[in-house]
Amino acid sequence: MNVLSGFDDTIAAIATPPGIGAIGVIRLSGKTAIPVADAIFKGKKLEAQPTHTVHFGHIIAPEDGSLVDEVVVTLFKGPKSYTGEDVVEISGHGSPYILQKILEAAISAGARLAKAGEYTQRAFLNGKLDLTQAEAVADLIAADSQAQQQAALQQLRGGFSGDLEKLREQLINFAALIELELDFSDEDVEFADREQFRILISNLRSQISNLLQSFRLGNVIKNGVSVAIIGKPNAGKSTLLNALLNEERAIVSAIAGTTRDTIEETLNIQGVLFRLIDTAGIREHTTDQIESIGIERSRRNAEKASLILHLVDVTDPDTSGIEWLKPFAGKTIEVLNKTDQVSGSQRSNLQSAISISAKKNTGIEALKQLMYERAVGETIHTENTIVTNARHFDALSRMMESLEAIEAGMRAGLTGDLLSIDIRRTLHYLGEITGQVEVDRDILGTIFGKFCIGK
Amino acid sequence: MNVLSGFDDTIAAIATPPGIGAIGVIRLSGKTAIPVADAIFKGKKLEAQPTHTVHFGHIIAPEDGSLVDEVVVTLFKGPKSYTGEDVVEISGHGSPYILQKILEAAISAGARLAKAGEYTQRAFLNGKLDLTQAEAVADLIAADSQAQQQAALQQLRGGFSGDLEKLREQLINFAALIELELDFSDEDVEFADREQFRILISNLRSQISNLLQSFRLGNVIKNGVSVAIIGKPNAGKSTLLNALLNEERAIVSAIAGTTRDTIEETLNIQGVLFRLIDTAGIREHTTDQIESIGIERSRRNAEKASLILHLVDVTDPDTSGIEWLKPFAGKTIEVLNKTDQVSGSQRSNLQSAISISAKKNTGIEALKQLMYERAVGETIHTENTIVTNARHFDALSRMMESLEAIEAGMRAGLTGDLLSIDIRRTLHYLGEITGQVEVDRDILGTIFGKFCIGK
Repeated sequence: MNVLSGFDDTIAAIATPPGIGAIGVIRLSGKTAIPVADAIFKGKKLEAQPTHTVHFGHIIAPEDGSLVDEVVVTLFKGPKSYTGEDVVEISGHGSPYILQKILEAAISAGARLAKAGEYTQRAFLNGKLDLTQAEAVADLIAADSQAQQQAALQQLRGGFSGDLEKLREQLINFAALIELELDFSDEDVEFADREQFRILISNLRSQISNLLQSFRLGNVIKNGVSVAIIGKPNAGKSTLLNALLNEERAIVSAIAGTTRDTIEETLNIQGVLFRLIDTAGIREHTTDQIESIGIERSRRNAEKASLILHLVDVTDPDTSGIEWLKPFAGKTIEVLNKTDQVSGSQRSNLQSAISISAKKNTGIEALKQLMYERAVGETIHTENTIVTNARHFDALSRMMESLEAIEAGMRAGLTGDLLSIDIRRTLHYLGEITGQVEVDRDILGTIFGKFCIGK
Repeated sequence: MNVLSGFDDTIAAIATPPGIGAIGVIRLSGKTAIPVADAIFKGKKLEAQPTHTVHFGHIIAPEDGSLVDEVVVTLFKGPKSYTGEDVVEISGHGSPYILQKILEAAISAGARLAKAGEYTQRAFLNGKLDLTQAEAVADLIAADSQAQQQAALQQLRGGFSGDLEKLREQLINFAALIELELDFSDEDVEFADREQFRILISNLRSQISNLLQSFRLGNVIKNGVSVAIIGKPNAGKSTLLNALLNEERAIVSAIAGTTRDTIEETLNIQGVLFRLIDTAGIREHTTDQIESIGIERSRRNAEKASLILHLVDVTDPDTSGIEWLKPFAGKTIEVLNKTDQVSGSQRSNLQSAISISAKKNTGIEALKQLMYERAVGETIHTENTIVTNARHFDALSRMMESLEAIEAGMRAGLTGDLLSIDIRRTLHYLGEITGQVEVDRDILGTIFGKFCIGK
């Protein structure tokens, strides 16, 4: 029996994706997880088995004793389990009907249906994970690119928590010194060296600033980069699209029965997803002879996009008609196409832009590299923490504001007791990120409500 | 290392359903399953761990050493495993992207991608299951009613195999006696008592006949019963439909976003699925005032259906216009509706039919019971073997023909050497069912090709 857990009830849910598969898993967690499993399991007495062992047997419906399935049961005795409580995983045949029946049997035997994210919430509340790690679990399950996966794994393994712990130690040390000064304030003693404080605050601000800046990258990693391809008729947009995607991929999505006008086409550059906007409009034409995408639609795409590829035909470089693109110059890459059709001297006049031939497939890799650099800024170093979560970004921003208030306070010669309030506030925001201070029930609800049931 | 297995390679596949879930499982099976897992697993050395134990650790991509996921690994050392070989199950986060990466890591480390049903095929070829049990695995995964589940479990646990084994023993005993007679045929001795033979053959035929007859029920269990509701405008068809389905269910399917004209509505009566044909045609009307289903469409539905409910308005019992239903009388249940609107004496004139009031919800349970009896014939006794598989039915039919040939041969006074050929043929058909005789590669391909990958 696990002493960490404050929960009296045992939860149960199907933990594998819905649908038909070879196997499916039902997970029980709680003080009575093993007795509940014993009540529906015909095989060895599970209570008598050691933790981290696996047992073959049958599930029996408690109400009528009928056979439900042949299963394999895995025991994890708390606190050495995902939730920190006793956990039993029942692996049965992957039929939704049968998994439902096993779940019903567990509920008849005394478990209750788990809510979304409740296993991970218990893991958090039982001290197995901090809040950033719990959030990383959801990010990991949603990961569909290498960059997402690496950022989530880094966070799950406590990388971000470690950074925050270092910040916390510095702040606590600072607070202690300030409060020591406070205790002796009647004696007008300044124990803490104010200059040393200023250096410490400046260091803290710089560390938090790095974390805040990483959010630009984190956001790109988590949400991808939307890209619009804009150009005059006959500039070669559909050829470029095919060159970027390569046709193999397009055929795969056709087989999957997806229609091109509903599914975004995505491009994975060094593990970051680039989502190509409105490719159906480009795909409509086998050649670019007809331009059915109106200016208004192109302008909307340009507005929505994080990155614009402005494709210019080098044999016809007049860009009249696309003047409306000028306000978006800050997020536009000028791409000169059909460079195979002009001489070297002509090409050399066209600097500051990237030159490709979509048709001959030259310059495409360089274009992808440029797109990556423009969107991501630098190569991702997965060993550094990347903030991918808007909740963390908000809390870090508030920490930054508090530190700025402390700096201003010191400049204004505020006494330790006033500075102390801002330091405690900074620590509070930090604690909200990891869940070390009591986090609002609504915030917990929002975090764990996004999880799937069974996690 | 498992001595049973004749396979040198190790197979790998995702065993859980596709899609996002809390957890997903990759399964490895083969002589090198544990070394392959050790090559990608950072944690305890798996080779050194006992069977049926579970270990937490990390999966590392072999090519660049990058972290792929935090996982739990389960070891099953052959022959105490599903396939009879060494099996490793890797339970990771339920992201399709990450599961794919774990699978790729296993393949880089020396496993190969499993084909559909290959785990169960190895279990069969390694003697862990006979062919009827292997087929039951697929049936169990596809089960979506209690009757299907129970029939598949009975078959998986060797119920059918046991019946066949008894038949086989009797046939072998018979063959031995006949062949003994054959050895002494020069001496014109009749060792075997021909009368005793006739009784034995008659018993065998009766047992096989029971199995063949169970297929009618087995087919109903496996494929469900298609039901058409036919009736004149205003007979109350949509009210009956609602009463049969109950509205709760209809709302559930509406929430799931299913359109009523593509999804069949199903009714579960005592564990058997009844599929209601063309309910969209009935659902179109909130009342029956307008009858847009033409006679031709109704006739087609009646032809397709295994069971017809002919709904007659007791206040307007004239059935002119529905004469075309007469040829289907054998599969039709006459249902008198709106019996709440007539007196008892009027009702008593209407015998041989079931009386209901769809609106008042009276007689609906009796109608369901009647539907069940007409379709299934008798209550399902799950302890008896039910043949649900057309392949088994065919082989049993051929066994029956062979036994009839033996009977005819005995009547014609054939000698033991001629009878012996038919007995051996009967044994061959029996062996094809369980896989005890060498089964055609194409048949195995058909059986295991229907499985999902990972089973």
